[in-house]
Amino acid sequence: MAKTAARQPVPVRRADAERNIAAILEAATRLLSADPGASVADIAKAAGVGRVTLYGHFPSREALVDAVLDHTVGVADAVLEDPSIDAAPAPEAMEKLLRSSWEILDRHRRLFVAADRVMATERIREHHDRPLRRVERLIARGQRDGDFRTDLPLSWLVTTFFSIIHSAAQEREAGRLAPENVERVLVTTMLSVLEQP
Amino acid sequence: MAKTAARQPVPVRRADAERNIAAILEAATRLLSADPGASVADIAKAAGVGRVTLYGHFPSREALVDAVLDHTVGVADAVLEDPSIDAAPAPEAMEKLLRSSWEILDRHRRLFVAADRVMATERIREHHDRPLRRVERLIARGQRDGDFRTDLPLSWLVTTFFSIIHSAAQEREAGRLAPENVERVLVTTMLSVLEQP
Repeated sequence: MAKTAARQPVPVRRADAERNIAAILEAATRLLSADPGASVADIAKAAGVGRVTLYGHFPSREALVDAVLDHTVGVADAVLEDPSIDAAPAPEAMEKLLRSSWEILDRHRRLFVAADRVMATERIREHHDRPLRRVERLIARGQRDGDFRTDLPLSWLVTTFFSIIHSAAQEREAGRLAPENVERVLVTTMLSVLEQP
Repeated sequence: MAKTAARQPVPVRRADAERNIAAILEAATRLLSADPGASVADIAKAAGVGRVTLYGHFPSREALVDAVLDHTVGVADAVLEDPSIDAAPAPEAMEKLLRSSWEILDRHRRLFVAADRVMATERIREHHDRPLRRVERLIARGQRDGDFRTDLPLSWLVTTFFSIIHSAAQEREAGRLAPENVERVLVTTMLSVLEQP
């Protein structure tokens, strides 16, 4: 390994750097979604790198949180981009979307609490908007197609979607909702709110 | 006034103390429900008393938060104790309860965030349980009477109740939900979740 490094210093250093960055992002996502106040020192430790290495890649807490959000939004967006969701009737699409993405959307939301402490609101909104807009478009489609109610504001239905996901995640963590029941409870609750009375 | 004070020192001092305590509790409720991290110095300032006076009545932050919770739970419980709520069929009782008490229940919930930082969980649970149990009893009654669904756990329906109230309060604050629409939106959403599909 050291020999290869001596012969090809740049690619190996780059591979090391990429491995470190991946480990830092993974640790930061995990620690910050569990506790928005997690320290950079704890994140470096969990990633198995020194603080100097971490600061070499992410010069500030803000830069690190920004990168973590970028990463999570990318993952959330990839999951939400499922063409079978776009093709299905809105109630069925809502069920698919909840089942495939409630966990990633909940993680995403927790990270915003961390972000809110260090980043400007406008920058956060840029990040936040992509998954939120997808959910909003799906609910609006259901309203246009006559599947979803129109007697409640669209923005309220979107808020309720995220708030119910977050409650279910907390209830599961507290041991008051069995893990195997979370998806059924989410789908039943959300469709009861959305569907025409 | 000074003359009266000289003649009847004890009652006047007591009246002053009661006025100060009331002002401190009012200011603490207001500041802590807006920001769970509000400082004791800020609370004293908002109450128009010195820090020494405040600490004379409430020797620690914990004692102050405890008194604020006691006070809020008392108010919430008095509002929830409406006999017309107990007499009405569950869906109508739920509508009355939401309209009369969503604001006090939301304030109550915010104060728990403040309490969570300084008090033992058991002591918080004692406080928390009274309004929560009332809501739980009403939903359970609706389930027994066949008005409310039984395909979702009771604990989940109670959680959803509090989570929807909190979301509506936040949406109103953010200017995304018109104040005159809050009650209708809350009642419609909650009954959609609760009533038999």
